[in-house]
Amino acid sequence: MKAVILLSGGLDSSTTAAVAKSEGFDELYGLTVNYGQRHLFEIDAARRVGEALGLKRHEFIELPLFRFGGSALLDENIAVPHGRTIENVEEDIPDTYVPARNTVLLSIALAYAETIRAFDIFLGINHVDYSGYPDCRPEFLEAFEKMANLATKAGIEGNQIRFHAPLLRLSKAQIIQKGMELGVDYSITHTCYDPLPDGTSCGECDACQLRLQGFREAGFTDPIPYAKR
Amino acid sequence: MKAVILLSGGLDSSTTAAVAKSEGFDELYGLTVNYGQRHLFEIDAARRVGEALGLKRHEFIELPLFRFGGSALLDENIAVPHGRTIENVEEDIPDTYVPARNTVLLSIALAYAETIRAFDIFLGINHVDYSGYPDCRPEFLEAFEKMANLATKAGIEGNQIRFHAPLLRLSKAQIIQKGMELGVDYSITHTCYDPLPDGTSCGECDACQLRLQGFREAGFTDPIPYAKR
Repeated sequence: MKAVILLSGGLDSSTTAAVAKSEGFDELYGLTVNYGQRHLFEIDAARRVGEALGLKRHEFIELPLFRFGGSALLDENIAVPHGRTIENVEEDIPDTYVPARNTVLLSIALAYAETIRAFDIFLGINHVDYSGYPDCRPEFLEAFEKMANLATKAGIEGNQIRFHAPLLRLSKAQIIQKGMELGVDYSITHTCYDPLPDGTSCGECDACQLRLQGFREAGFTDPIPYAKR
Repeated sequence: MKAVILLSGGLDSSTTAAVAKSEGFDELYGLTVNYGQRHLFEIDAARRVGEALGLKRHEFIELPLFRFGGSALLDENIAVPHGRTIENVEEDIPDTYVPARNTVLLSIALAYAETIRAFDIFLGINHVDYSGYPDCRPEFLEAFEKMANLATKAGIEGNQIRFHAPLLRLSKAQIIQKGMELGVDYSITHTCYDPLPDGTSCGECDACQLRLQGFREAGFTDPIPYAKR
């Protein structure tokens, strides 16, 4: 069974891919979009993860959204915020929010799915740890799916396009638990927003802290090296 | 008043930009996406149209969707269909349909708008002459707008994001009529799907035929040269 999977090379999308396989989607088409983020190590990680998964095909798309600016992830002039924890994450929209990122990613995934006549698209968005992001909410995903079925040949021909976000309601610890059960190799994933020049994770940015906290809560040791943990 | 305008360099988007200006949007941010279409002459036309409009800024984004294949516009191996007329255009989805094109274009426009804090996005889609395309239907646009307001910081902060498609329900002749009233210079636009190597419009592809028929019905002479008209 065919499916498109958005692969960032991070922990969430790697786990999502493993879930897709466990649900019988054995023909996975990977899609990695580089929208100009600073952490290019993610792209290398996505390639490694794709190889480990045995994808049918893996497309890498360059989309220079960074030109629009507007996010700490995309603009060297905005500092990456440190010290956001799971407790205060819901308070406001974080500076690492990339304008319309998931809308853009899902649109490109939809174009890819339409081309290969796949009707299932998997993505690793998560509402628990990223509830400050409007485009990680269940209501966003529902609205996108509705729109997608109106937008495409597949949709109007009666083939229901489905967006699967199996991690949507899981905590980071639950995601890691699930991934460990499914045999995900987290040593090849990359999460850090602010890595050292050699790619080592900083251990201090929001993304590192959420990941480390998740591993602790799940009762596992994170296999990747950190500058500080 | 700020607005983002999707500019392809064609007749419809040029007219749409003129409508936006006439409605008081005097700070126009142009966005031209090259998704790998064969008619690169469109990109040159978009640049000319942008200059004529006096845009505040004009972004050109390369998005190699052609890698996914699946459309005569994007794949040299699929012939461009000729001879489709306004009468039979509604029968089925034409081969020139690009998978999820408008979804992708609107998503990138949304990211751009979010970055510059604009809440209005203009696009030249049209339901009358392109009713074979699922993503040119009013119900698609409504669903996209709903999704966009859930997806973005602007939307959840209570700033209603609006997608304006002033040509949606106009015929090609009515579009041209309106553009002539607003002083659009159609001599700098490009429409042909299958131009000669020097950029001259073929006069035979669907796009040329719809355009020529529109000018005839509006009672004007199309100012661009054609190989055959």
